[in-house]
Amino acid sequence: MDDSALSLVLFSGTDDRLDAAAVLAAGAAALGRKVEILLLYWALDAFRNDRIAEPHGLAPEAGHEGAEAYRRQGEHWSDILRQAKQVGEVGIHACSRSMAMLGLSEADLDPLVDDQYGIASFVIGADGPVTFI
Amino acid sequence: MDDSALSLVLFSGTDDRLDAAAVLAAGAAALGRKVEILLLYWALDAFRNDRIAEPHGLAPEAGHEGAEAYRRQGEHWSDILRQAKQVGEVGIHACSRSMAMLGLSEADLDPLVDDQYGIASFVIGADGPVTFI
Amino acid sequence: MDDSALSLVLFSGTDDRLDAAAVLAAGAAALGRKVEILLLYWALDAFRNDRIAEPHGLAPEAGHEGAEAYRRQGEHWSDILRQAKQVGEVGIHACSRSMAMLGLSEADLDPLVDDQYGIASFVIGADGPVTFI
Repeated sequence: MDDSALSLVLFSGTDDRLDAAAVLAAGAAALGRKVEILLLYWALDAFRNDRIAEPHGLAPEAGHEGAEAYRRQGEHWSDILRQAKQVGEVGIHACSRSMAMLGLSEADLDPLVDDQYGIASFVIGADGPVTFI
Repeated sequence: MDDSALSLVLFSGTDDRLDAAAVLAAGAAALGRKVEILLLYWALDAFRNDRIAEPHGLAPEAGHEGAEAYRRQGEHWSDILRQAKQVGEVGIHACSRSMAMLGLSEADLDPLVDDQYGIASFVIGADGPVTFI
Repeated sequence: MDDSALSLVLFSGTDDRLDAAAVLAAGAAALGRKVEILLLYWALDAFRNDRIAEPHGLAPEAGHEGAEAYRRQGEHWSDILRQAKQVGEVGIHACSRSMAMLGLSEADLDPLVDDQYGIASFVIGADGPVTFI
């Protein structure tokens, strides 16, 4: 087993990719691995406190049947992340460049987000590889 | 050269991304590197035995010209994966959570898929980094 | 800090993902880390010298508001990459299989691209993990 941190850079803002990222993070955290998440672009936008619970769409290839199947699923990705933070060591950071682009301040974000971080510092600080989602 | 396994998590179900993943896997396998693939969501859906040979679309930015170029290409990604499995050590696993979401059983999947796997076990079991496609 | 090369496989051809990749590369290069980039498919298409400066679209979930925010941003991703190459060690390689698919020769590509490379050689030659964007 790899005991370096699982470093995830989230770019996409659709619910299905955010859900996949949340499950990866929760699985690693539950098994004692540190998780560091950096939110860029549309992933960051999905963490706005006035939008986090709203639907954020799915990958185009989901189609009608896939969207139906997705909707029948249980938990929201934000709840999976909340539980992961209770169970393990999961840091969620907003990319400061994306914050500026979207005109956001920290008060606009859900409390799941811990702080702001530069993308370069995140990549260099990662003690292992970076997975881009 | 890195001799850890190449661990690929496939999420997207479009033919172009599946093709890129297949070529990465085949290249690594041909050179003796172990490959482990986990199928989530729409990538898993693309491995249904009644749909694997059908067109699964392309990234939206392909456009008409890109789609034409793609269609003129030779082999199907499922054939590239089949050959990779003959040449090297390539495991293809269905994510059990995505199986449940899509209402699939193993009998619904192409024989390329070896078994089911939990996403957490896959990530933790990976002896190296995870590439998300 | 991880001192292996940052190996990026770029697949997507939208401006937002190319921008995220350029910022990752520039950040790593500025801090002395070697960066190797392989261009596949629509990412390669975006480096054609007759198209690199044109708009290449955004992820579908950007929406109208996201697109406006993106357009107000400063530098083009190609300029960020150009600076990264001046500051650090950044190799940009065209995937030879994608070159063939798109019917391109090296003369069709922006001078940012150094040479052609096979996808298998790239993955195997990477002395660290591969991030797929």
